[in-house]
Amino acid sequence: MRLSRYFLPVQKEVPSEAQIVSHRLMLRAGMIRQEAAGIYAWLPLGFAVLEKIKQIVREEMNRAGAIEMLMPTLQPSELWKETGRYEAYGPEMLRIQDRHERELLYGPTNEDMITEIFRAYVKSYKALPLNLYHTQWKFRDETRPRFGVMRGREFLMKDAYSFDLDAAGARKSYNRMYVAYLRAFSRMGLKTIPMRAETGPIGGDLSHEFIVLAETGESGVFCHQDLLDMPIPGEDTDFDGDLEPIVQQRTALYAATEDVHDQARFEKEVPPEKRLSARGIEVGQVFYFGTKYSVPMKAVVTGPDGKDVPIEGGSYGIGVSRLVGAIIEASHDDKGVIWPDAVAPFNVAVVNLRSDDAAVSSACETAYDQLQKAGLDVLYDDTADRPGAKLSTLELIGIPTLLVIGPKGLKAGVVEVKDRRTGVTEEMPLEAAIARCARKGS
Amino acid sequence: MRLSRYFLPVQKEVPSEAQIVSHRLMLRAGMIRQEAAGIYAWLPLGFAVLEKIKQIVREEMNRAGAIEMLMPTLQPSELWKETGRYEAYGPEMLRIQDRHERELLYGPTNEDMITEIFRAYVKSYKALPLNLYHTQWKFRDETRPRFGVMRGREFLMKDAYSFDLDAAGARKSYNRMYVAYLRAFSRMGLKTIPMRAETGPIGGDLSHEFIVLAETGESGVFCHQDLLDMPIPGEDTDFDGDLEPIVQQRTALYAATEDVHDQARFEKEVPPEKRLSARGIEVGQVFYFGTKYSVPMKAVVTGPDGKDVPIEGGSYGIGVSRLVGAIIEASHDDKGVIWPDAVAPFNVAVVNLRSDDAAVSSACETAYDQLQKAGLDVLYDDTADRPGAKLSTLELIGIPTLLVIGPKGLKAGVVEVKDRRTGVTEEMPLEAAIARCARKGS
Repeated sequence: MRLSRYFLPVQKEVPSEAQIVSHRLMLRAGMIRQEAAGIYAWLPLGFAVLEKIKQIVREEMNRAGAIEMLMPTLQPSELWKETGRYEAYGPEMLRIQDRHERELLYGPTNEDMITEIFRAYVKSYKALPLNLYHTQWKFRDETRPRFGVMRGREFLMKDAYSFDLDAAGARKSYNRMYVAYLRAFSRMGLKTIPMRAETGPIGGDLSHEFIVLAETGESGVFCHQDLLDMPIPGEDTDFDGDLEPIVQQRTALYAATEDVHDQARFEKEVPPEKRLSARGIEVGQVFYFGTKYSVPMKAVVTGPDGKDVPIEGGSYGIGVSRLVGAIIEASHDDKGVIWPDAVAPFNVAVVNLRSDDAAVSSACETAYDQLQKAGLDVLYDDTADRPGAKLSTLELIGIPTLLVIGPKGLKAGVVEVKDRRTGVTEEMPLEAAIARCARKGS
Repeated sequence: MRLSRYFLPVQKEVPSEAQIVSHRLMLRAGMIRQEAAGIYAWLPLGFAVLEKIKQIVREEMNRAGAIEMLMPTLQPSELWKETGRYEAYGPEMLRIQDRHERELLYGPTNEDMITEIFRAYVKSYKALPLNLYHTQWKFRDETRPRFGVMRGREFLMKDAYSFDLDAAGARKSYNRMYVAYLRAFSRMGLKTIPMRAETGPIGGDLSHEFIVLAETGESGVFCHQDLLDMPIPGEDTDFDGDLEPIVQQRTALYAATEDVHDQARFEKEVPPEKRLSARGIEVGQVFYFGTKYSVPMKAVVTGPDGKDVPIEGGSYGIGVSRLVGAIIEASHDDKGVIWPDAVAPFNVAVVNLRSDDAAVSSACETAYDQLQKAGLDVLYDDTADRPGAKLSTLELIGIPTLLVIGPKGLKAGVVEVKDRRTGVTEEMPLEAAIARCARKGS
């Protein structure tokens, strides 16, 4: 993408209500624009990050055997009356009447609807296990939306739903999602810790929140320090195999959000030098809720013995739009965002320090062309702005690698490769720099 | 994807209110499920097609220089009051009150919001031309939703918005979208004809609808027969160049929907043997509306002479979810859907005729593995169903190519490659069949 043709409205000033760093940086970097309280437009740069996160989540869900579909944003109230959640959900549910005065609602989650879909089609245990997921906009009418996309009202969530014949099967489905989440967050450059958590309005017996540690986190968290350095299951993980050891390796160590924290147990189980007490941001949550939805909604299958059995269910959410903010909270400095490579809107920026110099522009075009051909997302700053302004904008928006080309260096046969995270700049010939960027970004 | 692990709820019976063939086939093929009047869940097979269409549209929009972003589904009423459309839009607009009794609406289109975004950031003509687009769910509260996804209430639309300094620039932007649309629809296997059309609630001076001919089309259309066989601009089209000849080649020939049809002109301009009078389905529409939104919303830029100029705008929609139905209307037979390769949910199905035969299963696994490695989307029917049932399901869901492997053929050293469209079956050795399928699907 040529910057001269892009839409990147970076801002000097941001509104004072932007209290946390991710909100401020997303506004300054021209990633989002608020259209109403807690409702945002994703400008091109923000949208690019959102899509990269969505795609990583998709790949890991598919790897774990979940099947993608898409449910609508609006739902009929009848479904929620069947499960009793229409009243129970309270004022956070956005209730809508259509022109014929039928009651609709903007879905805050989809357990009810997916259970209706399941019961309409699946009649035998032979179709199990089944895990269906979608990534769709949701709405929760927060009283006081704040912190930008971290606590918006309209937000993008990936939610998956598993269906099993019995509790043992449901546990396996739960483990598959648990491991898929470890992989997905790790690919985004995040260290997340699964913590025992309250089940809240979803209900159920077992739940883990996946927490990113950050000083600005909304909840207190307590855990064993070793959880920070556990190995992440590899691409070759067999999701049909036994994942219990991976899960147990983590659940054996104390980790809990403040809602369920037990100080006595914490002190008993964790040696003092390993006690981590911090703040965290929830980026995903997994629930095992058994027959909570299948019994009232009569989602039953015929078991091997010919008898009807209500299915055992779980649900699994990832806050896709929230993750954009959470990653920034975990990865920034005083110059701006520092994107991990896998979620960066552009892998590399080619910076033309003198757009009116034919030799410089020609070298930039070569780099731009070759890096795109290497499969990278490249931003080419071909504008006539001052070098200093260019570099601070590219640092603000967090591009991981800058390939800087100017007249002086070019005469000496070199260009600069600058790493956003370390700040280290290296000089080298153009071809070597292109090869370096291509290797780094891939 | 192994069929034994997929979720493909094909149906024998469909509700009688499904009047048109695409609606019936989408229900029978397990592509969609109605959740409320005109509101559908996209089951995995339907979702896969929707994504392929969205991706083709995206690629062609990007090629034409448009920049992707994403606006929210809900909008504040204030924006629409500025343009006077809040009252004008009528009962098709879904109006919503949040918990604080603020007026929101579910966006039926985005001219107002994008104009607000534009005016917030763009101050100089130097940032022009600019074309921003998104693909987002919209809602129009039709009195009588029908024809499945062809006339749903919640529907997926790609909408682009162009901003130019003057009418000449706006015309160039219009032409870029006109040509991008020709390319996008052609890639989906559709023959579309751009026709002069009413501008309706979007307003403006110039508009073309892109029409797919189909007997079940909702509107009558009249055009010169030669429009059916015009060449489609290639991948190497220079969108910075002069596209006027491509557009004029088409607009020189009579083509109009019944709303603006002029029978006298039709008979005068088109020789009798070239007069085509048919029914059509609108799959896209382009509008040039000048300053209709920029004047009331004060979206002005400083021109080269230092004076403020309201921008000249256009908007460009493609009905992404509607296209799924339109493609089926244009491409089916009495056995089911016939997907054009580019939008097929799977390029190839590997059909195991005897899943309890080790040699057959092994050959199937080889084919499944190699075709996936060749980059194809492959459905492997590894179930124990009867061969006849397997083949009719795969024909119903419209997979373009079947690679059928059974014990008898395998002993004779051959497998079958069956083309869905022609019905032609050819026998050949396994390796040749894999190569054939890989070539055909890519």
